[in-house]
Amino acid sequence: MVVILKENPNQAQLDSLISWLQDKGIAIHETVGVHQTILGLVGDTSSIDIDLLTALDIVEDVRRIQEPYKKANRKFHPDNTVVKVGDVEIGGGELTLIAGPCSIETEEQICSIAKSVRKSGAKILRGGAFKPRTSPYSFQGLRDEGLRLMEIAKEETGLPIVTEIMDASQLPLFENVDMIQVGARNMQNFELLKVLGKVDKPILLKRGLSATYEELLMSAEYIMSGGNENIVLCERGIRTFETYTRNTLDISAIPVLKKLTHLPIVIDPSHSAGKSALVPPLSCAAVAAGADGLIIEVHNDPAHAWCDGPQSIKPEVFDSLSKKLTVIFDTCKSEAVK
Amino acid sequence: MVVILKENPNQAQLDSLISWLQDKGIAIHETVGVHQTILGLVGDTSSIDIDLLTALDIVEDVRRIQEPYKKANRKFHPDNTVVKVGDVEIGGGELTLIAGPCSIETEEQICSIAKSVRKSGAKILRGGAFKPRTSPYSFQGLRDEGLRLMEIAKEETGLPIVTEIMDASQLPLFENVDMIQVGARNMQNFELLKVLGKVDKPILLKRGLSATYEELLMSAEYIMSGGNENIVLCERGIRTFETYTRNTLDISAIPVLKKLTHLPIVIDPSHSAGKSALVPPLSCAAVAAGADGLIIEVHNDPAHAWCDGPQSIKPEVFDSLSKKLTVIFDTCKSEAVK
Amino acid sequence: MVVILKENPNQAQLDSLISWLQDKGIAIHETVGVHQTILGLVGDTSSIDIDLLTALDIVEDVRRIQEPYKKANRKFHPDNTVVKVGDVEIGGGELTLIAGPCSIETEEQICSIAKSVRKSGAKILRGGAFKPRTSPYSFQGLRDEGLRLMEIAKEETGLPIVTEIMDASQLPLFENVDMIQVGARNMQNFELLKVLGKVDKPILLKRGLSATYEELLMSAEYIMSGGNENIVLCERGIRTFETYTRNTLDISAIPVLKKLTHLPIVIDPSHSAGKSALVPPLSCAAVAAGADGLIIEVHNDPAHAWCDGPQSIKPEVFDSLSKKLTVIFDTCKSEAVK
Amino acid sequence: MVVILKENPNQAQLDSLISWLQDKGIAIHETVGVHQTILGLVGDTSSIDIDLLTALDIVEDVRRIQEPYKKANRKFHPDNTVVKVGDVEIGGGELTLIAGPCSIETEEQICSIAKSVRKSGAKILRGGAFKPRTSPYSFQGLRDEGLRLMEIAKEETGLPIVTEIMDASQLPLFENVDMIQVGARNMQNFELLKVLGKVDKPILLKRGLSATYEELLMSAEYIMSGGNENIVLCERGIRTFETYTRNTLDISAIPVLKKLTHLPIVIDPSHSAGKSALVPPLSCAAVAAGADGLIIEVHNDPAHAWCDGPQSIKPEVFDSLSKKLTVIFDTCKSEAVK
Repeated sequence: MVVILKENPNQAQLDSLISWLQDKGIAIHETVGVHQTILGLVGDTSSIDIDLLTALDIVEDVRRIQEPYKKANRKFHPDNTVVKVGDVEIGGGELTLIAGPCSIETEEQICSIAKSVRKSGAKILRGGAFKPRTSPYSFQGLRDEGLRLMEIAKEETGLPIVTEIMDASQLPLFENVDMIQVGARNMQNFELLKVLGKVDKPILLKRGLSATYEELLMSAEYIMSGGNENIVLCERGIRTFETYTRNTLDISAIPVLKKLTHLPIVIDPSHSAGKSALVPPLSCAAVAAGADGLIIEVHNDPAHAWCDGPQSIKPEVFDSLSKKLTVIFDTCKSEAVK
Repeated sequence: MVVILKENPNQAQLDSLISWLQDKGIAIHETVGVHQTILGLVGDTSSIDIDLLTALDIVEDVRRIQEPYKKANRKFHPDNTVVKVGDVEIGGGELTLIAGPCSIETEEQICSIAKSVRKSGAKILRGGAFKPRTSPYSFQGLRDEGLRLMEIAKEETGLPIVTEIMDASQLPLFENVDMIQVGARNMQNFELLKVLGKVDKPILLKRGLSATYEELLMSAEYIMSGGNENIVLCERGIRTFETYTRNTLDISAIPVLKKLTHLPIVIDPSHSAGKSALVPPLSCAAVAAGADGLIIEVHNDPAHAWCDGPQSIKPEVFDSLSKKLTVIFDTCKSEAVK
Repeated sequence: MVVILKENPNQAQLDSLISWLQDKGIAIHETVGVHQTILGLVGDTSSIDIDLLTALDIVEDVRRIQEPYKKANRKFHPDNTVVKVGDVEIGGGELTLIAGPCSIETEEQICSIAKSVRKSGAKILRGGAFKPRTSPYSFQGLRDEGLRLMEIAKEETGLPIVTEIMDASQLPLFENVDMIQVGARNMQNFELLKVLGKVDKPILLKRGLSATYEELLMSAEYIMSGGNENIVLCERGIRTFETYTRNTLDISAIPVLKKLTHLPIVIDPSHSAGKSALVPPLSCAAVAAGADGLIIEVHNDPAHAWCDGPQSIKPEVFDSLSKKLTVIFDTCKSEAVK
Repeated sequence: MVVILKENPNQAQLDSLISWLQDKGIAIHETVGVHQTILGLVGDTSSIDIDLLTALDIVEDVRRIQEPYKKANRKFHPDNTVVKVGDVEIGGGELTLIAGPCSIETEEQICSIAKSVRKSGAKILRGGAFKPRTSPYSFQGLRDEGLRLMEIAKEETGLPIVTEIMDASQLPLFENVDMIQVGARNMQNFELLKVLGKVDKPILLKRGLSATYEELLMSAEYIMSGGNENIVLCERGIRTFETYTRNTLDISAIPVLKKLTHLPIVIDPSHSAGKSALVPPLSCAAVAAGADGLIIEVHNDPAHAWCDGPQSIKPEVFDSLSKKLTVIFDTCKSEAVK
């Protein structure tokens, strides 16, 4: 941590700051410039609140040098973490496809899609039971009933299942869920993260719409600091000025997060774009950039096809996409490695 | 709602769409252009999922004409809503100052600040008991004990109190709290919003870091649709590319929200800027633009002054600011009116 | 174009608006709702200023239905445009690699890099003679001398050359340049665009840091409306809240622009990320998403390697990357097609 | 400047870096931490290219401590700069109102508005002769003829005039213009800035749509480094995710720029919002936050009122607004001071 002092700082306040830091076991190196003096802080600065330092009358600015996350930091854990979901591994050197419908509607629907995507190479089944909707007047998901239907599909296909939790109070319903998803809007629901830190299940943690890489990793750190280190990060588009796409897929997140953390990364091309035609090219791009997996919305109900979500692709599109992704993954494998 | 069709749409699908819409009681006006045909939908379109329509093969785009919020919409409720917090009114033609420390630390601290800000014109006391912190290693607030100390300050000063809830399970602890704050990171915690819709207390709803005006109003609608219509909206800075300030105060939110909704608007200049020197000019700007109130962080512990939050101003600054704000409010009153 | 009227519009003003529109040869279809009346405008609305309509007292909002660009619009020109740069084709079904140093420094440097990248498969040589620098105190490029050195490299290698113009007055110096680059900061330098519309050379038009797809296409339209239709669009990262990368590569731009326009698209992974380690994964992603080409910075001066730009990769990295890109391009070709 | 080294840096490269820096007269202070070593650079680092340092193999990151602008920096020029436009002073302790039509249309129009706004307290006349339009098919302004009409209005009213230049080649036409405006889209047209650095006229420099404070000040520095130090900065809204307003007025720019620079700041509320109803509240907010002046669009042609720009207010609105602004300015004066 580097503390930049104002010109001509009050000496008494400076001494008080220095002795306070030294009491915390931090060594201080002073660099005196013509207009500026800076303090280099050496030691474990993770307990120091950067905002508090910045507030001091004698301080102009404080810059963090070391990342504020530890358990999620690749510097301290150089090897890739492999997360197991049922028998499936994410981050273990194979491309993991997670697929399924946006919302769970009927037993027939979820089972039929599950079988179809399994055949096309999906290893994990996704589906929404609790749906975060911006409007209170929109369908809020089948909720408990949706979870029950997912469990049936799991039994029928053997695919492990992942679905979104929206509140800690729903946790008892997730007993048979193999991986719990934290949605973008709950990425900084810290009370929920704390609860999930005590759970013995892998977590799929989605990046918030305007969360920085550091904030995403700090949210992972919340869960990990509670004891649960099985976390898969998910980039699903960020909010920018461009409104043609629902969100802007931040493809750079893949190589950057690979460098910063040892946790696996999957990409959600369906929600990023909000348009099904963009799902195949964005999926290819994500795999080419080194993603460990993808989570893709697939629908297959021909009778209601026209009222399905705009970001869902059809099973036959998923099938041919899956084949192409395997070739790209094999070609680019060396990129995916740190 | 306007549905823009693709060129040469499949006639069977078009007929099916039209009859589906008509079944929902919606009248359809077709406008045929050279390259484009558009359908104008007349009737209550609030139950129609815009994403579902957009997904249709024959549809190029869908534009909403009517706002998706009803109870929060000024069109249907032209008169300003006045929210009562204890005996204090927000939105009733007086400027309401809400002030207090960032975190509650000790009984002495909260009571002393409470007395000071009351003397300077504050009508409501704020203070953080549950603190949303990006790092799990940072101080998380005094929690229940913090609430207890706030209640003491309330008794001693007669000021109603507002503090943040972070999870629905904390609600029983908020019995003596006069207004419940929903933080920016929980603005789309829909399960929490639903619970607060059933609560008989006013809600201070903060805008999310990257929430649009419409999304903020839809979150208000969530609470209102549950039955609780006592909502005060709070703009507290949005996330932009500019990083010199912690967030960018969106001053236009005041006149825009005044036009779109009948709910009162308060501004949080402390969190917007993240620097105490910016609090006075931003406070003046907010009042000049027509805000109904301000929520300001004030600290007064001289012994620990240097470790207080960088966004907190001192009691004497608050006192002189308060006087200036009153003059501006009186000068600009006519702007504040719809 | 759809005009949404305010409730109870003044009838005289409405009549005046309608007759003004009809005078312009536009047919009007009125859709009367309970709270809202909308006018559907049919005909050539490209000459109507949307801002002027929006300003009317009786108008609540105006939504454009048809894109405001014509010559760049795929709707009116369904076939892909193939742009010829010297003998090289961009957009013709082959991946086109453009490579070279950030700044031109010496004859030896530019010639040596030119030979190296040609060997690795680059078809066009890039290099900066006029450098747009945020600081007036930074090196501004070799300018005319830089152009002269590029011409030497062109002669020695046979590679056509592309370099940036910063002002219309520099045009006479570009006689031997094969493709003229318009930088991101000049994307809306309309006077420059008009001049380039009269030039008989292909233009590489970079997207501005905060330009929407529509604005990029409107800038292309400026050049095309002047008569020069040989334009290659270039996505090079947009400005977002995330500051870890210099800019955020908007990978979705590729499939979206492919849909909206017939012009070829190349990606600049070097400037997007600002870190050389990110260039290979972003290059792979861009090709997988359907880009027609890439423009990549390569440096090779071992003596000064340490003071080269952070976004430049080394020739050996470029060489192995080039091989990988060819495989991905062949695998994904079908995605690249409209 | 602080250079953060990677763990276990190559010693030969480190020595080479250190001696290179020392050759430039820079002293180096090393701070060795457990995982990280940082170098504090003391001396004039303005000639060091931060990107070049960052590119070194042994460097993890570089943080600038000192601002890269000098002539625009308040640290080196603590007193406010007062810019004279004709006989009018901007930044000299009085509020300066600049007003006029969006586009110049006819002699009658510009003269009539000029007289009206002068009567209401405007000190400088604005008007667009060269118009930057996103569409090549939109009206591009009266150009030279527009300048001629402005000069007539200047003669008739005695008001100094300000208007936008779009290319350096237009400069000869600006002989009788009192202040030259650089539009947001040209803020980083460095060739134009260099030319304006040699001109003996004050410059109104508008902030780019996605320009940081530092970039705005670096553009001012470009002009100042050429010798022209008479610059007025103008905040006119930035691009964010919120699209209800055309741009988001960054009100914090006022107190922040007041701290960083000695140059005067004016606000353009008309272009920020893009809606005339927002001009009065945003104007009040800007003055309350400490702006030195405002530049406001006013139209007065009753016959064509309905086809005027949506951001223009009417003369009578400007007149009553002007009175209110004076009261706010007097109330807030102390805020405006550094």
